[in-house]
Amino acid sequence: MQCDTIWTNAQLATMAGSGLGVIENGVLAARDGVILHVGPADNAPAFQAAQTIDCGGRWITPGLIDAHTHLVFAGNRSDEWEARLAGASYQDIARAGGGIMATVRATRGASVDDLVAAALPRLDALLAQGVTTVEIKSGYGLTLDAERTMLRAARMLGTVRPVHVVTTFLGAHALPPEWVGNADGYITELAEHWLPTLAGEGLVDAVDAFCEGIAFSPAQVDRLFHAARALGLPVRLHAEQLSNLGGAALAAEHGALCADHLEHLDAAGVAAMAASGTVAMLLPGAFYFMRETVKPPIAALRAAGVPMAIATDCNPGTSPLTSLLLAMNMGATLFGLTVEECLLGATVHAARALGLAGTLGQLVPGQRADLAIWNIARPADLVHGMGAAPLHARIWSGK
Amino acid sequence: MQCDTIWTNAQLATMAGSGLGVIENGVLAARDGVILHVGPADNAPAFQAAQTIDCGGRWITPGLIDAHTHLVFAGNRSDEWEARLAGASYQDIARAGGGIMATVRATRGASVDDLVAAALPRLDALLAQGVTTVEIKSGYGLTLDAERTMLRAARMLGTVRPVHVVTTFLGAHALPPEWVGNADGYITELAEHWLPTLAGEGLVDAVDAFCEGIAFSPAQVDRLFHAARALGLPVRLHAEQLSNLGGAALAAEHGALCADHLEHLDAAGVAAMAASGTVAMLLPGAFYFMRETVKPPIAALRAAGVPMAIATDCNPGTSPLTSLLLAMNMGATLFGLTVEECLLGATVHAARALGLAGTLGQLVPGQRADLAIWNIARPADLVHGMGAAPLHARIWSGK
Ligand SMILES: [Zn+2]
Ligand SMILES: [Zn+2]
Repeated sequence: MQCDTIWTNAQLATMAGSGLGVIENGVLAARDGVILHVGPADNAPAFQAAQTIDCGGRWITPGLIDAHTHLVFAGNRSDEWEARLAGASYQDIARAGGGIMATVRATRGASVDDLVAAALPRLDALLAQGVTTVEIKSGYGLTLDAERTMLRAARMLGTVRPVHVVTTFLGAHALPPEWVGNADGYITELAEHWLPTLAGEGLVDAVDAFCEGIAFSPAQVDRLFHAARALGLPVRLHAEQLSNLGGAALAAEHGALCADHLEHLDAAGVAAMAASGTVAMLLPGAFYFMRETVKPPIAALRAAGVPMAIATDCNPGTSPLTSLLLAMNMGATLFGLTVEECLLGATVHAARALGLAGTLGQLVPGQRADLAIWNIARPADLVHGMGAAPLHARIWSGK
Repeated sequence: MQCDTIWTNAQLATMAGSGLGVIENGVLAARDGVILHVGPADNAPAFQAAQTIDCGGRWITPGLIDAHTHLVFAGNRSDEWEARLAGASYQDIARAGGGIMATVRATRGASVDDLVAAALPRLDALLAQGVTTVEIKSGYGLTLDAERTMLRAARMLGTVRPVHVVTTFLGAHALPPEWVGNADGYITELAEHWLPTLAGEGLVDAVDAFCEGIAFSPAQVDRLFHAARALGLPVRLHAEQLSNLGGAALAAEHGALCADHLEHLDAAGVAAMAASGTVAMLLPGAFYFMRETVKPPIAALRAAGVPMAIATDCNPGTSPLTSLLLAMNMGATLFGLTVEECLLGATVHAARALGLAGTLGQLVPGQRADLAIWNIARPADLVHGMGAAPLHARIWSGK
């Protein structure tokens, strides 16, 4: 068989079949950026490869997928965090112009190039740990123009670095100052104007909202989701992070790809997600950083067979986290996930949460040849270490 | 003035004077590996510098100091952690030969070169985040020869990488299998034979012990510390991690450089440490990884004026952490330390815990020219980010 590259002498965690789908002493071949063959070295077909790479016994996993980030933003809120640690109250911070609106102001003043420059160190930190696909949300612009600028910056990141970028429109992140007192009107504006416009420009891969007492109600989210689906766009939802509004069940009704956070998810929400095949997107970085104490109902999700994914939720206010490996460690340490759940959660289940199941997230023929090659003794090391730099090489689209 | 290198156009966090000792638009000059001048650019003396480095407005801090690590060991216990997450009990793990004795078995089978090779990726991860001095303990050998091998590996790490290594003899880490039932005899062996031997070989900079119900009693530690002091060696102690045995007060009686962990420290211990000038070495990575719930008495330590340091406690069982920046974040997020306390804790107070106050840890004339130059907007970014890679350059001994 003809191929571009074959990786030999590797241990493969394919994330296919049962568990991690380990193949010891495996080979993997790719052609035109797509995986052509995966299997044990013993009975591998004969390849005529333009390039053969001996992995020296290293482990290969699918390239990691960070399926929930707010990577594009301007400004930096370490100053208000510093003040809070020194005793300032949330009210003090708000009076000083802090909180999410500080990020909105900075982001509204930024160009596409500004936003790309600001996001690149964060993206590079993710890539240095084997990430090959990243989801990026809007939601700090909160005007049509500024949301467009954010989404264009997200798309541009996918051209200046070897990474797949999936964009999500999160106009319903917070009520912008221009719309205070008229959240229903804002949702109508999003549903009838901004979303169709930005979708028409090819900037929107999915639609998200923040369903919470401090953000948008289930009824408002429902209206936005109807508009999204009318445009053929998949939906997902920040749900049950701070309280239980039944957001996950609402998302499931709309066939959402995923519901995210879920600390306050109840049994009905779990059942609804299981029925709709909605992925539970766990974000332990925000849980850790905000010193939350209520954990997502992992045992119930597990029992119901809801696929669980893990992401960084990288954002300037509640999760300044640019390490998907560390997010996995937090998933295990803080939420009690197993090593296998963490690794599936940053690969195959993350792909599913992006609507890309079968396209990436596993080492199987036909999927994209996005690989991470690691200096580790076993896959558990990826979850166990904190602050380690175990990446040997990152392969994106076969290269 | 003649100097080797001058760094200009820099923002300096000197860690001297009050707080972070910030100098905006500063210059720093070094000669023969030592800081010659630090101050504002405005009234800086004229230098004839062999090399001038324009820092482009970047921040400079003292090189970071990780003053409590078990960086040298063989083997890897991610497998038992994986089993525990999957439901195995501590008893199951112990029956399967896990726990600290798994690391002791692997370490006893390793040569100096083996241990150096195993430790280098961990050391390199620390250095990549601006660490210029690292303390490394023995304590996984638990025979005279194997403890010597560990300490020699630690010393060698300081020759194969540009980093200062401070060694600590931790023979009293756990009771080795050869001495079960005779902990008193083991302490006598350490005090009368191993310690004088290894100190005579120049391998020991300080003496440590693990004072805990599962390890050694205060009376045993007291005997060991008397022996250490008779040899002119400073002492330090793993104290009050899992219970309150009065270890910190005992350490303070011996004028210990620091007492470490301290989750169960009481008011008497705080007072004793304050009186003796003993540093409180906080290890939030172990607290996090072991899912502990009792925190060190930060408010009491602060009120008593006890200097607080932060370290990784990098070790294979309870803190597989190789990021001092992340340890600082955990200190703030989990223990409620301020940004300033975290930064002083990884620089000037860490130096004091190594007996090196006045020698390193601050940007002041006469101290070693160990610097970290950062791509950050403000010092708080070093503590705020999780998984970021903000180091621009690391200068060790002026280079
Ligand atoms: Zn989010
Ligand atoms: Zn320790």
